[in-house]
Amino acid sequence: MTAARTFGPVRIVGTGLLGTSLGLALRARGVEVILANRSPAALRLAIDYGAGRAATDADAPALVVVATSPDSTAERVAAELAAHPEALVTDVASVKGGILRELIAVGADVARYLGSHPMAGRERGGAMAARADLFDGRPWVLAPHDATDPAQVRALEDLALDVGAVPVVMDPEDHDRGVALISHAPQLVASLLAARLTDGQTRAVGLAGQGLRDTTRIAASDPELWVQILSANAAPVAEVLSALRDDLDAALAALRDPEAPGALATIAGVLDAGNRGVARIPGKHGRDERYASLVVRIDDRPGELARLLTEIGEEGVNMEDLRLEHSPGAQVGYAEIAVLPERSHELATALEARGWTLVEGR
Amino acid sequence: MTAARTFGPVRIVGTGLLGTSLGLALRARGVEVILANRSPAALRLAIDYGAGRAATDADAPALVVVATSPDSTAERVAAELAAHPEALVTDVASVKGGILRELIAVGADVARYLGSHPMAGRERGGAMAARADLFDGRPWVLAPHDATDPAQVRALEDLALDVGAVPVVMDPEDHDRGVALISHAPQLVASLLAARLTDGQTRAVGLAGQGLRDTTRIAASDPELWVQILSANAAPVAEVLSALRDDLDAALAALRDPEAPGALATIAGVLDAGNRGVARIPGKHGRDERYASLVVRIDDRPGELARLLTEIGEEGVNMEDLRLEHSPGAQVGYAEIAVLPERSHELATALEARGWTLVEGR
Repeated sequence: MTAARTFGPVRIVGTGLLGTSLGLALRARGVEVILANRSPAALRLAIDYGAGRAATDADAPALVVVATSPDSTAERVAAELAAHPEALVTDVASVKGGILRELIAVGADVARYLGSHPMAGRERGGAMAARADLFDGRPWVLAPHDATDPAQVRALEDLALDVGAVPVVMDPEDHDRGVALISHAPQLVASLLAARLTDGQTRAVGLAGQGLRDTTRIAASDPELWVQILSANAAPVAEVLSALRDDLDAALAALRDPEAPGALATIAGVLDAGNRGVARIPGKHGRDERYASLVVRIDDRPGELARLLTEIGEEGVNMEDLRLEHSPGAQVGYAEIAVLPERSHELATALEARGWTLVEGR
Repeated sequence: MTAARTFGPVRIVGTGLLGTSLGLALRARGVEVILANRSPAALRLAIDYGAGRAATDADAPALVVVATSPDSTAERVAAELAAHPEALVTDVASVKGGILRELIAVGADVARYLGSHPMAGRERGGAMAARADLFDGRPWVLAPHDATDPAQVRALEDLALDVGAVPVVMDPEDHDRGVALISHAPQLVASLLAARLTDGQTRAVGLAGQGLRDTTRIAASDPELWVQILSANAAPVAEVLSALRDDLDAALAALRDPEAPGALATIAGVLDAGNRGVARIPGKHGRDERYASLVVRIDDRPGELARLLTEIGEEGVNMEDLRLEHSPGAQVGYAEIAVLPERSHELATALEARGWTLVEGR
């Protein structure tokens, strides 16, 4: 293991999921971690897990990370700036602009504040849910402002890299607009769509396929958490949703009079824009244009999928992505496998030779 | 193989994906299949694939299945009713009410027409994409009307069962409202959401996670096909979307003034309704409340996932569902496994003993 880049000690205020996970990850790199929490029991638990040690009056942290609830973050950051006049102070809240504005409003020393947002999380919160690998491969956004010194950005980049995250530098307002677009608005849209299912006949909902399941999956998220996030980033989320609402109104008008001139063109325009939008999403997913998709029929019993993946491995083909599609009411399922296009025909032939049934693009 | 239930010969009009797949599935059960297509080349291709034989003047089909494009279905059904006065005639179009109304309007003998909708399809169309197992485990909706004889419903149930589908009897209007809710409206909503991404900064879209990928996946569907489907079922789709629009307007008002009394309750109400709606979706999916979810860290290289699934099999635990979550920019991924709750703790312990890193609920 290479030496840690982070210059400690690092003081972590708030020992919930993110604070405790950060402590665990930094301790694993040998960085000195000081933990603080208003609840002695919660603090003791994080210390028991090995996320760091309790604070002392003699502490002189080089970096303070505020990982309290979004509502209390700005107040806590201001207190830490005052208490540790030598330290760089950051936070991990998922919305950045409002905190900076609050700090400026209360006259805090924002020259030593650099907000950040590690884009990692879990359904469950608290120290008990903490993992040293929580930040593995996740983007960690750094949001510098006018008073930020480049050395401060480098210091937080080192912190992100030490815990396995991918540092991304963004203006606070760009960050908030960005997460509104890729996370906050989609959450509300998925909830709005899933909410419609509460009206539907049970037998109609029973016809649902994989498309509906994927489209509404995140609607199962925790409402309490999301009310906090959405209200903290209300304006950018409203901006995305009001543009969506305008498109929806145009589509609705077309659907109410599909014979009208231009109606079908309006609907086609929405569908085409959807094609272009989804093509911009990076990373691995079934429809990723960089990959070819093979769909293999598998019996819905233990071992079959493992056997398939083992045989794909034996063919020396790297599986870029995998999605299971289930057939309601049947004892069969389909595994959708994404592979490099130049290997796809060869793999299809090999799998069929091994007795698998291929149903490409089902 | 048990004997086919279907009483043939079955005449299939239209040899695209559905018509040819049905022919292949019925031939595999030994049922006599007669194929018809206005394009001699397309007909010849389907015959070459083994989906059936060419029509002759001597044919007396017991059942006619019209599998032409949605736009031409009603006209074709009327022609088949006139040409085969002894036959039961059905179709496979994804919208049912409008076709029945058209047939009544032109004075067709609807006492011999029973519309249906096999809920199977693929991105690619045409005879070349046909598969004998296309209908495996998929719902096949039968839409009887006032003039329908119960024996006709039994005949189509036999057809569906012979090709591996799950027959579901629904009133035509209920069917159209049902597919508007669970398929047509979600398609348009996914497209509307993905369309927003065309505005976003590339760097912001680069922060996208699995949630956005799932929510927008079906937005990659073929616009040309979906314009036909959406315009054929315009009124029911508009009904779902206008209810969604009303909820969206309420959420927008709350987001524009989150300090207003009741604003947070409005947002929480949408999120809670989303929780209740998604819980109504049957079948296997990651958030299925019947299952416990384990998330296992896997190195992003060939063989690792196969090894994990093999070891789960060795532990004698049946995996109810599997989803891969990728970590953008990192060489690690996470496999989310759904298992019966009573086996989940045992499996987690066993996997950790085998050296796997568990990140439950990540």
